[in-house]
Amino acid sequence: MGVDPGLTRCGVGVVEGTPGRPCRMVTVGVVRTPPDADLADRLLTVDDMLSRYVEKYRPDAVAVERVFSQHNVASVIGTAQASAVAILVGARRGIPVHTYTPSEAKAAITGSGTADKKQMTTMVTRLLRLDEPPKPADAADALALAICHVWRGGTRARIQRAAQLQQTPKGAQA
Amino acid sequence: MGVDPGLTRCGVGVVEGTPGRPCRMVTVGVVRTPPDADLADRLLTVDDMLSRYVEKYRPDAVAVERVFSQHNVASVIGTAQASAVAILVGARRGIPVHTYTPSEAKAAITGSGTADKKQMTTMVTRLLRLDEPPKPADAADALALAICHVWRGGTRARIQRAAQLQQTPKGAQA
Repeated sequence: MGVDPGLTRCGVGVVEGTPGRPCRMVTVGVVRTPPDADLADRLLTVDDMLSRYVEKYRPDAVAVERVFSQHNVASVIGTAQASAVAILVGARRGIPVHTYTPSEAKAAITGSGTADKKQMTTMVTRLLRLDEPPKPADAADALALAICHVWRGGTRARIQRAAQLQQTPKGAQA
Repeated sequence: MGVDPGLTRCGVGVVEGTPGRPCRMVTVGVVRTPPDADLADRLLTVDDMLSRYVEKYRPDAVAVERVFSQHNVASVIGTAQASAVAILVGARRGIPVHTYTPSEAKAAITGSGTADKKQMTTMVTRLLRLDEPPKPADAADALALAICHVWRGGTRARIQRAAQLQQTPKGAQA
């Protein structure tokens, strides 16, 4: 499950797949909270809605976009707060949580860490063989994070396996 | 219960009292998480420790310092994430959560919105009649937020009562 964190719009996307193979979209959505609502109510809504996704789809991992200080300073606070909620939704249930920078997600999906929103949406639509692009962009970004995690998880597992094989003494059973 | 949010040091202070009268300190502490630990683990620790305070002391309200974009941009992300955790710890249990700006807390405690850390600590020590200043500063700030809430809550309640009295038609029972 990928989460593109935000208080006004929080993208959520669930995919299933194995490393190196096309993923399948399970669901996609956006959690919205009114900008003029009380902060506690907004955080509670994001917590509640993301919790429902986790309980319904029981993801193996949660991938959340990492918040950077390069972001717009005015909006970074809300984004950071929503990301904390998303991370806790997974962590409280013992689900592994990984964070990825926007460039990592872009590089995993398009091959370029500097791809723009439109290129990302186009690639996500193509990779998941969707009939039309997921909207809004937050939804597409959430799916991109989920795909990024599946694929990079594969790379990571292969590296770990290779490292283990190298460490295994000759003649020993791996 | 007041919370001065932070990932590396999160101050927590519980006081009891009524508006316009001296408050009594119930407890004070600091939740610390290692800066090199995984973000999910850090947020989970803050969530877990603040939850223990809430379950042990059952506060009537949680007062959290509001995060501002004026903060250092590099540290604002962690502060914002810790504040989201603190707000949710109260909100998930239906406890009213209020946020106060640093100036609001300073003005409530010292009479000046621009008081420095030392003046704040001195006043918190005096107001709570403590034998020695609470340390570190995060702990004193958490107590200040708690006192600020008790006192301002009183002002707010008086304003609401006055407004209700004005709205009550003559001869009606309030």
